[in-house]
Amino acid sequence: MYTEFDVIKYFFNKKNKKNIRYTANIGIGDDGAVLTIPKKQQLVVTTDSLVENTHFFSNIKPEYLAHKSLCVNLSDLAAMGAHPTWISLAITLPKINHIWLKKFSNTLFKLLNFYKIQLIGGDTTKGPMSLTYTAYGFVPYGKALTRSGAMHNDKIYITGPLGDSAVGLLLLDKKIYIKNKHDYNFFIKKHLKPDPKILHGIIIRSIASSNIDISDGLYSDLSHILNKSNCGAEIQLDLIPLSKSIKKQISKKNIFELAVSGGEDYELCFTVPKKKQKKLEILLKKNNLKAFCIGKINKNFRTIKFFYKKKQLLLNINKFEHFNQ
Amino acid sequence: MYTEFDVIKYFFNKKNKKNIRYTANIGIGDDGAVLTIPKKQQLVVTTDSLVENTHFFSNIKPEYLAHKSLCVNLSDLAAMGAHPTWISLAITLPKINHIWLKKFSNTLFKLLNFYKIQLIGGDTTKGPMSLTYTAYGFVPYGKALTRSGAMHNDKIYITGPLGDSAVGLLLLDKKIYIKNKHDYNFFIKKHLKPDPKILHGIIIRSIASSNIDISDGLYSDLSHILNKSNCGAEIQLDLIPLSKSIKKQISKKNIFELAVSGGEDYELCFTVPKKKQKKLEILLKKNNLKAFCIGKINKNFRTIKFFYKKKQLLLNINKFEHFNQ
Repeated sequence: MYTEFDVIKYFFNKKNKKNIRYTANIGIGDDGAVLTIPKKQQLVVTTDSLVENTHFFSNIKPEYLAHKSLCVNLSDLAAMGAHPTWISLAITLPKINHIWLKKFSNTLFKLLNFYKIQLIGGDTTKGPMSLTYTAYGFVPYGKALTRSGAMHNDKIYITGPLGDSAVGLLLLDKKIYIKNKHDYNFFIKKHLKPDPKILHGIIIRSIASSNIDISDGLYSDLSHILNKSNCGAEIQLDLIPLSKSIKKQISKKNIFELAVSGGEDYELCFTVPKKKQKKLEILLKKNNLKAFCIGKINKNFRTIKFFYKKKQLLLNINKFEHFNQ
Repeated sequence: MYTEFDVIKYFFNKKNKKNIRYTANIGIGDDGAVLTIPKKQQLVVTTDSLVENTHFFSNIKPEYLAHKSLCVNLSDLAAMGAHPTWISLAITLPKINHIWLKKFSNTLFKLLNFYKIQLIGGDTTKGPMSLTYTAYGFVPYGKALTRSGAMHNDKIYITGPLGDSAVGLLLLDKKIYIKNKHDYNFFIKKHLKPDPKILHGIIIRSIASSNIDISDGLYSDLSHILNKSNCGAEIQLDLIPLSKSIKKQISKKNIFELAVSGGEDYELCFTVPKKKQKKLEILLKKNNLKAFCIGKINKNFRTIKFFYKKKQLLLNINKFEHFNQ
């Protein structure tokens, strides 16, 4: 019979020392981790829970769960412009399943190696399945991006196509059906294996006036920027980048609704003062990254207007809210 | 209908600015918090989950849950010798109950005020009830206490009586019955309202060779010190302080088993080199604190021997393990 301590020892106390950006002074194995923050840096921390049947289906593969749960948290660091360094993971499981845990932990450590992140602690408890990460990252002093700096006439950018993850969720939920295997897999992957836009977050740090990651949908997340920055926005729907698959499989009317209110794309949405646009284009090109200007900030109080080919369009916005389900 | 954002706004985004030791640069309201760590200090972080029906009964009063869940986490900081500064809380609830949340949050903020701690973030999600805290504290550089420094002949101390919390759990679980109202309330309070030994942790920082908080029972937690420090221990059971209530209500044989394997007392167990004992006594007296020498470290490999009036005693040790239930 595995105990809580065995679980930590066998599955979570792995060494990826060679591939850690910044090693904790004390990591797993004591009552807490001990961390030194480099001079002139601030620490950014973020906490997020994923709960079975609320954020993921109970039959989710452990590899997907590991990928999604980690990357959703790293996306919050990207939203702050932070460079990830450490995570802690509190995992609650109904029972200890050796094969499941091995697959989960293998994927988790593959990703931690890729991002050079150290697992510095956590907790293993018995109960209905859920995962709570705390993710830690660095920003140079005073350089963290927030939701509150957007100004009149700033341009609004997103880092990639929207709506694909929402289609993936509809497929998993068996609410729609897509025959084409390639497109099916594309949407599922977009939903279960998000790619946090860490590098974007770092390079726009000195350029963007505000930034957020799109977890609840463009409408909902851009609204957070507008609320915090006391301004409004106009979005040109035809400027939102769309994947080949979504254009092929989903009707135009539905595409825009999914793109605007679907959520879980984990692209960044940020604002840039007009005079810094050139600098942004240069930096993006230099780093082989893309971002797409989809509209601008205006003085309207906390409202978003959508346009399609310069004509205003009213969309059916579903604001997603777990507690209303 | 309350949304996730309403819950955060009404119950968790309270201001206790006047009563915060060290204010975060950015707290609740963005994708992450931004923290500056003072010069010559290290950050200690610890994460702990409490899950319904595993760590607490589903009918627990919100005031007790708030108290217990916070203080269990602060106790981990005390084990590291850290001074608490911030916490984040990821709370999962099956539904939003206004009255419940108000009581929970009132108690939480009363305690945060008392300890001068700032709530810097978290997450509110729908699902079976659970709470995951990340607690943050400071230690002067290199001064964190760990489990790994105990040496041959060091004295073993605990900060207060053991076993009372275990009796409280037996009462709540209706496995025993105590008629005397005063004693009943005493045990329940010991179980549901733990008192983290933060000040002890801070003052023994420069004296103790190892330290841990007693969450799983003296046997289990002292074993962690022995495993990490590669040594053994002898405990004089008659030196363990006991409450008046436990001496009155529980038979002597059971008292020792509860004191040694009961758990959740959240006293500290620490080791002190013989030559620093005098300094410890002075510091304790100066700060109006108590600690009790209950044995010493020996060279035996990771074993604990128990003595009662100088004769060895074999105890029936229950190592508590949620996954085995």
